[in-house]
Formats: sequence, structure tokens, C-alpha cells
Amino acid sequence: MSTRLGDLVKSLGGELIGDPDVVVTGIAPLEAAGESHITFLSTTKLRSQAAATRAAVLILAHAEVDFIRPRFHGALILTDNPYAYYAHAANYFVLLNTTPPSPGIHASAVISSSARIAPTASIGPHVVVEAGAIVGEHSVIGAGCFIGQDARIGASTVFHPNVTFLSDCHIGERGVVQSGAVIGGDGFGFANQKGQWIKIPQTGGVRIGDDVEVGASTTIDRGALEHTRIENGVKLDNQIQIAHNCIIGENTAMAGCVGVAGSAKIGRNCTFGGAAMILGHLTIADNVHVSSGSLVSRSIHEAGQYTGFYPLAKNADWGKTAAVVRQLDGFRDRIRELEKLVKELTIKK
Amino acid sequence: MSTRLGDLVKSLGGELIGDPDVVVTGIAPLEAAGESHITFLSTTKLRSQAAATRAAVLILAHAEVDFIRPRFHGALILTDNPYAYYAHAANYFVLLNTTPPSPGIHASAVISSSARIAPTASIGPHVVVEAGAIVGEHSVIGAGCFIGQDARIGASTVFHPNVTFLSDCHIGERGVVQSGAVIGGDGFGFANQKGQWIKIPQTGGVRIGDDVEVGASTTIDRGALEHTRIENGVKLDNQIQIAHNCIIGENTAMAGCVGVAGSAKIGRNCTFGGAAMILGHLTIADNVHVSSGSLVSRSIHEAGQYTGFYPLAKNADWGKTAAVVRQLDGFRDRIRELEKLVKELTIKK
Amino acid sequence: MSTRLGDLVKSLGGELIGDPDVVVTGIAPLEAAGESHITFLSTTKLRSQAAATRAAVLILAHAEVDFIRPRFHGALILTDNPYAYYAHAANYFVLLNTTPPSPGIHASAVISSSARIAPTASIGPHVVVEAGAIVGEHSVIGAGCFIGQDARIGASTVFHPNVTFLSDCHIGERGVVQSGAVIGGDGFGFANQKGQWIKIPQTGGVRIGDDVEVGASTTIDRGALEHTRIENGVKLDNQIQIAHNCIIGENTAMAGCVGVAGSAKIGRNCTFGGAAMILGHLTIADNVHVSSGSLVSRSIHEAGQYTGFYPLAKNADWGKTAAVVRQLDGFRDRIRELEKLVKELTIKK
Repeated sequence: MSTRLGDLVKSLGGELIGDPDVVVTGIAPLEAAGESHITFLSTTKLRSQAAATRAAVLILAHAEVDFIRPRFHGALILTDNPYAYYAHAANYFVLLNTTPPSPGIHASAVISSSARIAPTASIGPHVVVEAGAIVGEHSVIGAGCFIGQDARIGASTVFHPNVTFLSDCHIGERGVVQSGAVIGGDGFGFANQKGQWIKIPQTGGVRIGDDVEVGASTTIDRGALEHTRIENGVKLDNQIQIAHNCIIGENTAMAGCVGVAGSAKIGRNCTFGGAAMILGHLTIADNVHVSSGSLVSRSIHEAGQYTGFYPLAKNADWGKTAAVVRQLDGFRDRIRELEKLVKELTIKK
Repeated sequence: MSTRLGDLVKSLGGELIGDPDVVVTGIAPLEAAGESHITFLSTTKLRSQAAATRAAVLILAHAEVDFIRPRFHGALILTDNPYAYYAHAANYFVLLNTTPPSPGIHASAVISSSARIAPTASIGPHVVVEAGAIVGEHSVIGAGCFIGQDARIGASTVFHPNVTFLSDCHIGERGVVQSGAVIGGDGFGFANQKGQWIKIPQTGGVRIGDDVEVGASTTIDRGALEHTRIENGVKLDNQIQIAHNCIIGENTAMAGCVGVAGSAKIGRNCTFGGAAMILGHLTIADNVHVSSGSLVSRSIHEAGQYTGFYPLAKNADWGKTAAVVRQLDGFRDRIRELEKLVKELTIKK
Repeated sequence: MSTRLGDLVKSLGGELIGDPDVVVTGIAPLEAAGESHITFLSTTKLRSQAAATRAAVLILAHAEVDFIRPRFHGALILTDNPYAYYAHAANYFVLLNTTPPSPGIHASAVISSSARIAPTASIGPHVVVEAGAIVGEHSVIGAGCFIGQDARIGASTVFHPNVTFLSDCHIGERGVVQSGAVIGGDGFGFANQKGQWIKIPQTGGVRIGDDVEVGASTTIDRGALEHTRIENGVKLDNQIQIAHNCIIGENTAMAGCVGVAGSAKIGRNCTFGGAAMILGHLTIADNVHVSSGSLVSRSIHEAGQYTGFYPLAKNADWGKTAAVVRQLDGFRDRIRELEKLVKELTIKK
């Protein structure tokens, strides 16, 4: 479905330079955009490509106007944050083009008589909802999801198909949980008694705030005695493991394959690159950014970017440097000895 | 539900100093415990906190009695291993407070006529059990689980919802499999023929012993020609990958995100920190402990702790050291040359 | 079921030396093979074991005949690529011994009236197929799978139980998708606006070619505006994460736990060892091989083997070398200074 450009800008804000009656049908990248598309310029590096786009409309920052205007003859939308505007505009088109699932409970779903499903919620085929669980207004529970005893799902939250959301787990409003995610598995807790592992029952739950996204096949374990906590606005990509008793602070984002060990307490507005690992019982301050593939083995008390991965090399070169890494402790001693000897030689001379 | 302290100690052992008629309702951490709780002191570092707890009962080691007794006025339970005692006590309360699922097969489950389900087993909604599969006494198969042809599940084993347990996989007694786990997927075996990959059929199964726990979204592949084997008492956390033909020895424990490549043979009583990776066809001795984020690229024949991850640093500092890592091979030569020159200078002088 | 050796060789090719009327029942490894088995010699290292095998038939390369013939008295199959021949022979026995699932749709499956299921396809219990989806001839959709709107599954493709294949995802012919895989989850795309993350709708799909295998619990995200693409013959092991907009070239193979960040473009015939990580927006040439546990942080334009992991050591040794790694930048300066001083001393002398 299409929209009048003026209607879109009225809804989303920004300054329109051009014809509000232009009809637009969607968003496309700079090079792929056709004559009914909106596109966006989010970095000065791409300004030449932006000038050459065939799109009808270009979203851009005020600072780019002088360069773009003589070169591009479509409409402009000026905004402080073109990338965020693109996100809002894309959501605008999604709403325009998507029919939400019909409210109601599919005949094949198995719902406990003591569960409370809001009348505007949609429950897909083969879903199971156990005793005491609550599903909020306008929420969507995709096919095959499991909702455990006393679980709570806030309004307007979407579970894609085949999510497992176990007993005593809560999630707030406007959440998104991708397929294959498992929330509320037992934390990994065992006491060792003469070589045997005795399971420690995991009796806490999981508490997830509003506006949280959980990626496909991501796992969040329940707490041992207290709850595992994911605060408002947290975004978790796929294949992430959050162990028991962790606290992930507001608006922190983690890329795919990150692991967080038990009882780690992570601050707000942090970002973690793919496959970063955080050891247990650590504290990470707000605004800490950890690079991909880096292992965090101590608490971090100061904001900033942290990195720790072995640099890639051709295999033969790596073989040589890795062999030297094993001798590094000796190198330090040899350099010290050389410094001592050279100093003696210099003095004597 | 609550219990008389004397009854708990009679059941679990340990030496009680205090009133056996005290009524207790559960376990809590030192600081959160209230007046009807049992708590525990598992490390001397926390002895001051233990002395100040509001709990009714404190589990502790004999060595702590002299410090604690003048400072804490509740009951004491003396034991060699307070942490293991806590685990047992927590399980005691779980049994007290949990109603096991009713035996029987949910009407929506699809069970082959040649499958054998013990009369005391519980089969949840939307479960599928294929031909020839066996489910033992008192086992619980959660909603949405798939049990393949000729699979065998021992007595008192619990599958949480949405487990996939494929054909010719066996698990023993008292096992726990968390949601999203996939046991018996095809091993990754292909022969390369002029650039094309020819699939090698994976015709072995998976054999899992007694008292094994498998975490959420963990995958254990079936063997190529023989079986993949997980021995008694092994504990696997979430998001672990065990490739075909591996053997994991008794009571070995692996934290989240560990990967074990094909045909690795791992000993008993080993531990692997999160995201440790073990290459294929290696042998790891008993009592080997591998730190988080470490890659094991050769067999390990000697018990001990092994580590190999790049230390984390501020990004700018990492950039400098990583640049030098690439030159390490040259450093060795330069240090040798310096040593030679300094020796010559010293002799000539 | 058994086969006449002559029939097998007639079907698969290769040169038979020995009695074509020998009856064989399956494949086994060199040491485990019994008197009705075929076995294979794929590396000269094992030639002594091959000579001693009890198998009825040995698959081997022409170059091994002179060594083997005087020592082994069973039949020989000569071929250029014994390992590939083994793969073909193992598939031959699988076909002989496997009854394919009966065509048809299980009564408990929920199929949209606008989905098109080929009459020879098999749809298992509790499967959901949504509007407009297409399932091709002879394809098998295991129990509990979800097939989203307008998804397309080519002929002779097998989905093991509990696969999630979301809307607008396509896979070609002869594909295999293992249990727990999630194809078509949303890419991880958010625009940051004053600390809040604004979700960028992920409106692309996933396009998977022919002869592709996707492992258990592997996730492949849909594209943001365009499609994520997996080309013909790609083989993905378990627990792999492929982010949005990636392109994985023909016949590339990835071992377990690999992660590929968004918009990476990977060439043909590449291999990635377990837990290798590839950062986003990179280009990897054809025939690049990345070792296990290595992080690829820049584009690679030249074929070859690349490695980058910290070597494993005993924990105490690692502690010493890791401490020195942190000082490496200073080492460079100290070596330079020493070189300068020694040169001065040498000249003055």
C-alpha cells in the first residue's frame, strides 16, 4: 500500500522540502530505490550515491542539504537523525501493509482454565498456556509456543512461533521474542560432593521489562533463589546465553552468540559485539562497549571501548607468532638483562 | 509448605545444634533470609554476614562454629560440605512444595501404537512419540517434545517442553533435559568430491547415561557409524554443541556455549568454562579444567587447569599490543641479535 | 538389508577386484568391521590397520593396491576418492534400509487452505503451514515444524522435527534442515535515538539454494530490505548464526558455533572451523579457510588458511605470558632503544 508523502511527514515529524502530494510505496537502499521509494543518507561517505539515487524522496541531515540540493531533484526530509527517521518510516509502511493476526484462540491450542487471555490477544495453533498464566491485550503468541504456569506477558508483546516461556517468567509491554528462544530454563547450579554433582533447585524466575527484544534461539535462565532481570529497552540478538541471576541494565544491546555467566551485573547503554563473553559475578559499568570475540574476565568500572582478541593472520604467520607468545615471559627477562648489560657497557666506556 | 527442622536433619544428616521443633519454610541467601528461613555459609569470606543473618537456621562447616556461635543465636547444622547440604535442603523443600504432573497421556499427544509409555509417566500436550520408543516410570515429557523411533528414556527423567529427542537416542535414569535441546541431529559429515560435498549418512545413535543434565538449546549429534556417548553424571549447560562420535566422561561439567568437535574423547571429572572450544579427534585426560574462552587445539594428557584467551584491554591499548603481536617473530630475532652483539662488546672490552 | 557387491559397484562405479557375488550388509570402520562389511582406507597412515581388517571388502585408492593386495584377502574397490566412495556406499545402504515416510498430511497438522502441498510430500503431526506456502514433491516436514506465509520448500527437501521456517523464506531441492533450526527470524537492526533503540523492520526474506544443509539450532536471519542468501551446496553445522543480509557462496562449509555478522559476503568453497567469527560488512574471497576459534575482523581478498587464537597453556604459564602481552607495546620501544645504544657502543669502540 502507498501513502501520500505529506501524511507520512505529518505523522513522523521532520522538515519536508518538496511536494507533499508525492505518493510513495516503501523504503529502499540508495542504489536499489526506484521512483516511488523513500531512501536515506545516514553517513557522509555515501553522499555521492545519495545524489545519484532514483528515489522520489531522500531522508538526510541538515548538514547534507548544501551538497545534495543541487544534485538531487526529488523531495527531501530533513532530520537530526536520518537513520532513526528511516526506522520510523519503515515501521510506518509495515503498519500500513500488515494485517495483524485476528484476535482469538486457535482451536488446537491447549489453554488452562485458570489462564487469563486478553480478548484482543491472538493465540496460534498448538500453543500451550498453563495454569495461572496471563497474556495481555493485543499480544500475539505464535504457533507452537509454550507459556508456563504463572507466566505473565504484557500488552502488545509478540512471540514468534516456537518460543518456550516457562513458569514464573514475566515480560512487559511491546516486547518481541523470536522463534526458538527459551526463557526460564534452569540455571546451571550444582554442588560438588565427593565428585558427584548435586543439583541446586532453581527456584527464582525471570523478570523482563518493557520494549525488550529477545533473539532466535537465545536462552535466559531463571534465577537460583532470586530472579534473573532484563531491564527495559534491552535488545538481545540470536544465540545468546544469559545465565542465572544476571542483571542486564536498560537499553543495553548484545549481538549474536554473546554469553553472560551467572550473577553478572551489566550496566545501562552498554553494547557487546558478537561472541563477546562475560564471566560470572562481574560488574560492568554503564556505557561500556565490548568488541566482538572479547572475553571480559574482570569487572569494568569505567565507561569506554574494551577489546581482547588475537589478531588474525595467515596460518603460517600465526604459527610463528603463537610460538613466540609461549616464550614471552622469557623475553621480558632477556630484555631486562640486555638493558642491564648495555648500561654497564655504557658507563664503563 | 513448611517443615520441622528436626525432620529435615533426620532426612539429610548433619549435626543439629538447636531446637528440632523450629518450623522452617525454605532456603534464602544470607542477606535476604527471614526468620523462617534456612541459610548457609559456604566460604569463610562471608562469615561476618553469616553472623548477622536473620535466618532461623545456619548451615555451616565445623571450622566455623567457634566464630559463629557467640554471634548468631539461631540453630546450626554442622556438615563437612555446607554448599552440598544447601543443595540437598533446597531439593527437600522443592519436593515438599511441588505436585508432580499427573501420570497419563494428554489427549493432544500423538503416540505410536508400538511405543511403550510407563503407566506412571506423564506425557504433555502436543507431544509426539514414534514407533518403538520407550518412556520409563515416573518420567515427565513436557509439552511439544518429540521422541523419535526406538528412542529410550529411563525412569524418573524429566524433559522440559519443546525438547527434540530423535530416533535411536537413549537416556538413562534421573536425567533432566531443558527446553530447546536437540539430541540426535545428524553429525556434520561430508566427503568432498571435486568441490561438492557428499553427505555421509549418520547412522549411529546417542547414548546418555544416568543422572545427566542437558541444558536449553544444547545440541548433541548422533554418531556417524558408532554412537556419541555421554557418561553418567555429566552436566551440560545451555547452548553447548557436542559433535558426532564424542565421548564425554563421567561427572564432567561444561558451562554455556562450549563446543566439542567430532570424535573428541574427554575424561572424567573435567570442567570447561563458558565458550571453551575443543577441537576434533583430541583426547583430554581426567581432571582437566579448561578456562572460559580457551581453545583446546591439542590433546591434554595431564590433569590441571589450562587457559588460552587474549587479555582484555582498553581498545586503544589492545590496538597497540595487537600490532606488536604481529611482529613477535621478528622480536625474537632482534633480541637474539642484540644478545650476540652485547656479548661481543662485553668480551672485547 | 543386504546387497550383492556387484550390484553396489555397478551402481556407484569404481573398479572391483574380487567376487561380485559376495553379499554385504553395511559399512563399518576398519577396526569394527565384521565379515559382511565394507570398509575403507582414506589415508595412508591407516594402511596397516586396513590390511588387518576383517571386512569382506575394502575401498581404497589405486596407489594403495601394491601394499594392500598381498596382505588382505577380501575384495577391493579401487577409486580415486575412497572417502567420497564411502559416502556414496553408505547412502546406498541407507536407501536400501529406509522406508521413506508415507506421503500425506497428518490429521493433527494445521494447513492453510491456500498452502500448496505436493501429493507426494509428507507432513508430520502438529505441523503448521500458513497461507500461500508451497511444499514440493517428495519433501518431508517433520513433526512440530512451522512453515510461514509464502514460504517455499523445493522437491525432496527434508525438515527434521521442530524446525521454524518463517514467512517469505525459500529453500531449494534436496535440502536438509536439522531440528531446532530457525530460518527467517528478524535481523538485529535498531537505530539509536537519544539512547533508545528504534526497531528497524526486517522486510527481506531468506533465499536458500539447492543441496544445502542447515544444522540443529542454527539461525539464519531474514534481510532488512533485501534477502539473506545461502547459495547452492552450502553446508552449515549446528548452533551457527547467520545475520541479516549475508551472502554465503556456493559449497562453503561452516562447522559448529560459527557466527557471521550482518551483510558479510563470503565466497565459494570456503571452510570455517568451529566457533570462527566473521564481523559484519566484510568480504571474504573464494577458497578462504579460517581456523577454529579465529575472529575475522577485516576483509580477506586472497585464498588461503587464516588463523587467530591465543595458544592454550597451563594456567600459570598463561598468567605469565598474558601479563607480558599487556606490556608488548613497551617492549618494542625498549628493543629499539637497545638497538640504538648497542649500535653507538659498537661504532665508538
